[in-house]
Amino acid sequence: MSLPDDKKKCRIAVDAMGGDFAPLNQIKGAIEAQAYSTDIEVILIGNSDRINACLQENNLAYPESLIIHADEVIGMDEHPAKAIRTKKNSSIVVGNKLVKDRTVDAFVSAGNTGAMMASATLDLGRISGCGRPTIGSVMPSEKGITTLFDVGASVDSKASHLVEYAIMGSIYVREIYNIPEPKVGLLSVGEEDAKGNEVTLTALPLLRKANINFVGNIEGRDILNGVVNVVVCDGFTGNIILKFGESVLTLMKNLLRSYADKGLLNKIKALLIKNTLKELLKGFDYQEHGGVPLLGVNGVCIVGHGKSTPKAMRNMILRAQDMYNKNLVGKIEKSLKEYSL
Amino acid sequence: MSLPDDKKKCRIAVDAMGGDFAPLNQIKGAIEAQAYSTDIEVILIGNSDRINACLQENNLAYPESLIIHADEVIGMDEHPAKAIRTKKNSSIVVGNKLVKDRTVDAFVSAGNTGAMMASATLDLGRISGCGRPTIGSVMPSEKGITTLFDVGASVDSKASHLVEYAIMGSIYVREIYNIPEPKVGLLSVGEEDAKGNEVTLTALPLLRKANINFVGNIEGRDILNGVVNVVVCDGFTGNIILKFGESVLTLMKNLLRSYADKGLLNKIKALLIKNTLKELLKGFDYQEHGGVPLLGVNGVCIVGHGKSTPKAMRNMILRAQDMYNKNLVGKIEKSLKEYSL
Repeated sequence: MSLPDDKKKCRIAVDAMGGDFAPLNQIKGAIEAQAYSTDIEVILIGNSDRINACLQENNLAYPESLIIHADEVIGMDEHPAKAIRTKKNSSIVVGNKLVKDRTVDAFVSAGNTGAMMASATLDLGRISGCGRPTIGSVMPSEKGITTLFDVGASVDSKASHLVEYAIMGSIYVREIYNIPEPKVGLLSVGEEDAKGNEVTLTALPLLRKANINFVGNIEGRDILNGVVNVVVCDGFTGNIILKFGESVLTLMKNLLRSYADKGLLNKIKALLIKNTLKELLKGFDYQEHGGVPLLGVNGVCIVGHGKSTPKAMRNMILRAQDMYNKNLVGKIEKSLKEYSL
Repeated sequence: MSLPDDKKKCRIAVDAMGGDFAPLNQIKGAIEAQAYSTDIEVILIGNSDRINACLQENNLAYPESLIIHADEVIGMDEHPAKAIRTKKNSSIVVGNKLVKDRTVDAFVSAGNTGAMMASATLDLGRISGCGRPTIGSVMPSEKGITTLFDVGASVDSKASHLVEYAIMGSIYVREIYNIPEPKVGLLSVGEEDAKGNEVTLTALPLLRKANINFVGNIEGRDILNGVVNVVVCDGFTGNIILKFGESVLTLMKNLLRSYADKGLLNKIKALLIKNTLKELLKGFDYQEHGGVPLLGVNGVCIVGHGKSTPKAMRNMILRAQDMYNKNLVGKIEKSLKEYSL
């Protein structure tokens, strides 16, 4: 594992085997990211035979010194805890260990999200003061973007975890989207303090005491309307909302398709609509946001969509660089420490 | 409270004071419903002075014998439990009591949902074997419709409540949408049996034992794709999904509006798109579905959207008639009894 000793560059490791179109999209994304930024060095982790074969097949070139071999691959559907226990030489475990020993500055993967989460938590360790790491998601809103923490890192979140999500999410949005005092809302079934389930009712007074710009309870309709920058909820609810949101677009696509099938006039109308809709809904395009951050672990980790395109991979790599350069991990540690005092 | 003694007709009471546009939309809906079906008699409940003034202002006529005076009105934002305790002569409480004493066969309201729920539960009482009544919602899907139980009748649902929702939802979909063996899915964060939070993990084996067509866990993306006819979840999650889903359409409308503002060409394109989109998304239009059923109480109750139009009110009334004629309450009671044996 010898790597060029160019200390000025930010070194991002990419899981070359993670994703439905691995390793091709991952390789292309790495190449695009390096073309985009000269301050970056992208290391591909994975089965070197498969990476080299893919490079040859697609007439691509990649410096051999930036490819790190990892024998094993964790499949998209493997049981996370079991997979990281038995596949110590998988690209996911190797990637996180490289972050741990500071060989690289960040790790991004479009592979098995649960395995990424488990390996990052185990191999990098949690930031001091963080009970539960969180995966956040970026969504469009009428006023720009909204983030949602947690979207499935853990179900049955406790009230104290919701406070941690709020603190970590605030820092992420402040640093990455340059919003000085991000507004934080607690997702519930009504705006009044008395509305909510057991967990949110317990979390509400804790959130009021935390050093964040907390606005109180918000409702499902407020996620996309831009009243807050950070939506806090348990991982169960967040995961369901995220997948439901994606499916609304799928439904629309399918409805448009069957509409077009109903005659020539419809076909023409559908064609006219399609491109405008695409433009309108650009904010919903996961490729733009460069994956979702995994916060609360001792290192920069980004998890991508299984279907990540080269563009999505490139944006994930650049986002990881930004998180590293802005010392997200250090800032989160400091804030969690202040909260616990 | 003397009413014409026409036993053949189904008598539906309408909360004339409930809704953002009450009593006008409620009156118009009642008139439309009676024009639509000769087997129906619609009774307006509310402040008779206000109802009569509204009739005059709008040049409408309504038989005086079908107007029942109720002094008080429960506001949309009033605390449900407190409101029904202190406003015994409100249109909501009076309506449910008329169902209770069999003066009417069903009651529909576009007023305060929580108050409807509380009054129906208290004044009508729960069906024997039902621990928690449920409010369901109808959503479009690629294969027709999907229903979601519960959407907020109660948060912190227990596993046994989820089973009740599944049984009651199955009967509703079977009877009202003529789907012989509705498929039921448990909303969770993964399809595997091991995925879920504490409540869903406990509910899963109970649902397998119930006499329903249970397919197992489903994910957020499956709500709209038509894999099941009944989605079961706790009221907290369901309420958030429902409001989030509505907001996706609001966001699109607003995005389209600002797109149109960016120039003449955009304006023309936006106009072209608008109508087609409306046609495409008809399934999302709450007006079509005629409100959401409140199941598990001893009577037919339908709750409508605060913004209910005359058309929405009409459809709610006709849906209530259908539920009454098909003896939904009796069938739910029988199934819950069989389950508990």
